Amino acid sequence: MNVLYLEDFAVGQTFSSGRMRVDVQEIKTFAAQYDPQPFHLDEEAAQKSIFRGLAASGWHTAAMTMRLLVGSDFQPAGGLIGAGMDELNWPKPVRPGDELHLKIEIVGVRPSKSRPSQGFIKVRTTTLNQNDEPVQIFVGNLLVIARLPASG
Amino acid sequence: MNVLYLEDFAVGQTFSSGRMRVDVQEIKTFAAQYDPQPFHLDEEAAQKSIFRGLAASGWHTAAMTMRLLVGSDFQPAGGLIGAGMDELNWPKPVRPGDELHLKIEIVGVRPSKSRPSQGFIKVRTTTLNQNDEPVQIFVGNLLVIARLPASG
Repeated sequence: MNVLYLEDFAVGQTFSSGRMRVDVQEIKTFAAQYDPQPFHLDEEAAQKSIFRGLAASGWHTAAMTMRLLVGSDFQPAGGLIGAGMDELNWPKPVRPGDELHLKIEIVGVRPSKSRPSQGFIKVRTTTLNQNDEPVQIFVGNLLVIARLPASG
Repeated sequence: MNVLYLEDFAVGQTFSSGRMRVDVQEIKTFAAQYDPQPFHLDEEAAQKSIFRGLAASGWHTAAMTMRLLVGSDFQPAGGLIGAGMDELNWPKPVRPGDELHLKIEIVGVRPSKSRPSQGFIKVRTTTLNQNDEPVQIFVGNLLVIARLPASG
């Protein structure tokens, strides 16, 4: 897998991820620890909620997306280091048994004005389910290392 | 604890949470499952990284923030249901042993045009460490239920 530096990125590049199956027990375990609301914990309560069925916490979807990103072919030098987000939303619930994968698009590249050794890329990561329906859209800015600048 | 409906919210209201101590093992467990990068997993590797020491995944901080929100005195009717985010960033790393708490501010209230039974509130949630330094700022929009409208 190639590690990519600031200079290697360009607007329009796309990357992809593997797939991850969403387990019902993992939905409940994550929710019990971090988002203990009835519609993430219990099928019957979830049926009566706005979700009309058990749904993963949005933060769980974000965490699963991060897991897919770390394992994807999108490998910036220095790692995936978030420097703020422009957009994060969950257009559709994630259900037990869903199979998630990512579409990763570079939508901005910007050298740092103060530090020539680094810069920022803006990345749109769309998390899709097995029917290619977006379940999360997240546009974030990442800190990326530049190659050593040529001297002189 | 009072459950709050759309009509109960007003710009300027604030709410607060309990406190949560960040455990080193929990940082590593979360990272191993969802964000397996060296600076979230291993003290020695983290020392050599941009974080200069073990730091929690930003998504872990977001998840811990959600846990504090669910247990806070901010209790919208119908639960905490995210409808998109305006801002999410992590101004400072979260370290093992940090003690987190929230400052929750209502910054917008808007009835739904299409559905009078619901509306949206915009909430700024600042996650602070034991030195009252912000470690996460997140401005999100939540779906909130209105009281039944008076008939006639």
